[in-house]
Amino acid sequence: MNEQLIIQGLQAIVGASGVVQAEFDMQAHLVDWRKRHHGQALCVVFPASTQHVSAVVRFCAEHDLRIFPQGGNTSVCGGSVPTEDGRNVVLNLARMNAIVSVNAADNSMTVEAGCILANIHDAAAAEDKLFPLSFGAEGSCQIGGCIATNAGGVNVIRYGNTRDLILGLEVVLPDGTIWNGLRTLRKNNSGYDLKHLFIGSEGTLGIVTGATLKLYPQPKAMVTAMLAVPDIHAAVAQGLTLQQAFPGSLIALEFISGSEYEIVLKHAPTVKRPLTTDPQCVVLIELSAATGTSDQLVDALSDCLEPSIEAGVIEDAVIASSEQQRQDLWLLRHSVTESNVHEGMGITHDIAVPIYRIPDFVDQAGAALAEHYPEARPVIVGHMGDGNLHYIAMFPHAAWADVADKKAFQHALSCRLYDIAAALDGTFSAEHGIGSLHVDEMGLYKPRAELQLMQGIKALLDPANRFNPGRVLPGTNSSL
Amino acid sequence: MNEQLIIQGLQAIVGASGVVQAEFDMQAHLVDWRKRHHGQALCVVFPASTQHVSAVVRFCAEHDLRIFPQGGNTSVCGGSVPTEDGRNVVLNLARMNAIVSVNAADNSMTVEAGCILANIHDAAAAEDKLFPLSFGAEGSCQIGGCIATNAGGVNVIRYGNTRDLILGLEVVLPDGTIWNGLRTLRKNNSGYDLKHLFIGSEGTLGIVTGATLKLYPQPKAMVTAMLAVPDIHAAVAQGLTLQQAFPGSLIALEFISGSEYEIVLKHAPTVKRPLTTDPQCVVLIELSAATGTSDQLVDALSDCLEPSIEAGVIEDAVIASSEQQRQDLWLLRHSVTESNVHEGMGITHDIAVPIYRIPDFVDQAGAALAEHYPEARPVIVGHMGDGNLHYIAMFPHAAWADVADKKAFQHALSCRLYDIAAALDGTFSAEHGIGSLHVDEMGLYKPRAELQLMQGIKALLDPANRFNPGRVLPGTNSSL
Repeated sequence: MNEQLIIQGLQAIVGASGVVQAEFDMQAHLVDWRKRHHGQALCVVFPASTQHVSAVVRFCAEHDLRIFPQGGNTSVCGGSVPTEDGRNVVLNLARMNAIVSVNAADNSMTVEAGCILANIHDAAAAEDKLFPLSFGAEGSCQIGGCIATNAGGVNVIRYGNTRDLILGLEVVLPDGTIWNGLRTLRKNNSGYDLKHLFIGSEGTLGIVTGATLKLYPQPKAMVTAMLAVPDIHAAVAQGLTLQQAFPGSLIALEFISGSEYEIVLKHAPTVKRPLTTDPQCVVLIELSAATGTSDQLVDALSDCLEPSIEAGVIEDAVIASSEQQRQDLWLLRHSVTESNVHEGMGITHDIAVPIYRIPDFVDQAGAALAEHYPEARPVIVGHMGDGNLHYIAMFPHAAWADVADKKAFQHALSCRLYDIAAALDGTFSAEHGIGSLHVDEMGLYKPRAELQLMQGIKALLDPANRFNPGRVLPGTNSSL
Repeated sequence: MNEQLIIQGLQAIVGASGVVQAEFDMQAHLVDWRKRHHGQALCVVFPASTQHVSAVVRFCAEHDLRIFPQGGNTSVCGGSVPTEDGRNVVLNLARMNAIVSVNAADNSMTVEAGCILANIHDAAAAEDKLFPLSFGAEGSCQIGGCIATNAGGVNVIRYGNTRDLILGLEVVLPDGTIWNGLRTLRKNNSGYDLKHLFIGSEGTLGIVTGATLKLYPQPKAMVTAMLAVPDIHAAVAQGLTLQQAFPGSLIALEFISGSEYEIVLKHAPTVKRPLTTDPQCVVLIELSAATGTSDQLVDALSDCLEPSIEAGVIEDAVIASSEQQRQDLWLLRHSVTESNVHEGMGITHDIAVPIYRIPDFVDQAGAALAEHYPEARPVIVGHMGDGNLHYIAMFPHAAWADVADKKAFQHALSCRLYDIAAALDGTFSAEHGIGSLHVDEMGLYKPRAELQLMQGIKALLDPANRFNPGRVLPGTNSSL
């Protein structure tokens, strides 16, 4: 079937306006937001219903087309744009953006997959509820993408990853079957729990079209604080103390290296300098409570920190006493990515290790950089409470320009750091997923038995390798 | 190969004392604890290591033997004893009972699958930590069985089901492959999350041999209370208020019908009558906190309950002010199962519906019993906070003796109640699993797409249908 007939066939399913094929209009869907990954496609399809998705999938199966599901296109791993080869269709869920229902008594919400995460926050807040998934891209990412990638973020320490916030799913399978698993049950031991197979599978096993989400009461009290400590050992020790003291209340426990802190203050003009000292390491803390007052939380936090302050381990501390101060502290944290772009060429590693091994990782990674890449500076930001660091080898632009084979250089550097993480029982991909960027690492670092199981499941559900080929699993980019 | 050679082959793997074949010695492993399900086997094998398990599995594959993994044999669904036909080997994990390590800083513990749940509690407590999974059988059930069945219990409302407490697994697959997924990472988005496939699969996809568990700080303050309310509507309304008020602190929210309350007081001589009235409905509450005092919790709970007490909705309330009083309240709750056995023939239904629909379920189920089974009395106990009721149609022994075809009678009654649960977006099996008892319901109540996916996964992992045949999925009891 020629290209024009394919377009017509897809238009017959989703309507003429639901198929985009002009080069210019497709552009935003073929390149990731950081402009690092490029792909091509015959068209971008915008289904308006689950039935549309199913019909498009069946149509693509009949006509040997590959399908690349896409949400807000905020992947940092090349997971949300198609490959450069093959007969590709991008399937973007943006039109399926209805908040279907919010049930306050059930602490649940049902949404279509194309809902923007921030809109879900607002819909929950309107019922005095909290949907706690939160991270930088929340203003543009779609919940379907969050589910497909099991997104993490800043509140995982208290509320878990996306996986932990999903009660039920609706999924379209590679043969076009619609599985309606939209349930809000807290307990349901009737057979294998299929939703967990699709969550985090990055669109390679099915297309998430809808979800039932877990809601929480809105916290009534909150306190945010920033601490300066001399080194990563002190930062982790303080973090462990806080985790032990506030298991139900500690909702964020972030780490920012002194280098990162200075980069943000240098490049982000709206960020205020919160600490009076020049910190070696910064810890950002947030506590919340469903009852009591923020003042009570401030008191409890102060009591917990006091011994370390008196011992001089905490060199400086600021506790936000107003919502504005709170937002100022978070603005510093959320200005990291953009500031780093201005600073130089940062090679980012989204590693996780057990929390108590973070100091070992930072020490060993720092030594490796100093020995093998003296031009690079370690810049670190991350979700310390989850053992998850975004560890960045920051090269001055000039030094990076001198590197001949950039891809090989980057791969060698990254593997050095991933080896350190692996030796500390860690992972090379904590929350950003695999996409196309880390497929090689899957082959290098995953146990063989595990990889074979994954490949078997992929072949079972998608024997034609039609959904997101070339992503997640090695050996799946054979063009149809 | 004849039976004696099979025994010798298995003895060569696990040692002579690791194979039990005498009828008398096998008996405890071929019948469930309530003596409702019977099976037979060539022998019961007790491996002492993961390597043993793998070798036994390979041996059974070579010699066309079916394997029935067994933990503490505390299933209430016939999930832990073998079938009555077939060349069966029971594989009991009791010897693999080592607490491998407890890491307080990491809030994690690594255990072998045969560890008794209560021993895990103790090992955690020794490090001032909590492993929160808790239910009646905790003194004899093995953690491997908890994982295989995704056990629930009384603290799910705060800490989740077993699934939510597992960081990593070690599993032996049907081909003998050992998958070592023993990790303690809180974030690890590197491919499909395979552990969730095995959790709750009831030993049909793999044999859990080890696990890494999530620990929590031990609560420092606790309060337990029992309320009398006039009906299920008032009970659920009070429950929703408590959930909204204490999202991080409410760790148990149990419901006991007046009929159940009286049955316990009639048959359990050590249980004290906690309430001064004869309640229509009883709500059992437990709150805990990592900081503060129990007195503060008592005050907070009293404040929350006060409006309902003043309005007369709460007709009576007792708040445990000592550990002894607390244990007395829980003794009433935990004496339910044994007391019911004395009372009559109880047909139990482990249903769940969204919490706000519990009153609808109770009303409709009560009406159905009154209309079709006037001899039966509704007796209800359950985990109200999870929407999970154990709804019991209690027949006097004499009336039950008059029923001709008991199996058909029971099936018709149960389906009437499951239909009501299903129409309220509920499930016929909330926390007890499927075992052999509910295989028919899987065929009746699960969507076809879901059942096909499960059957595909079973065929992929266990093409010879060797692991726990006849359990969970319809059509899997073809004898080897």
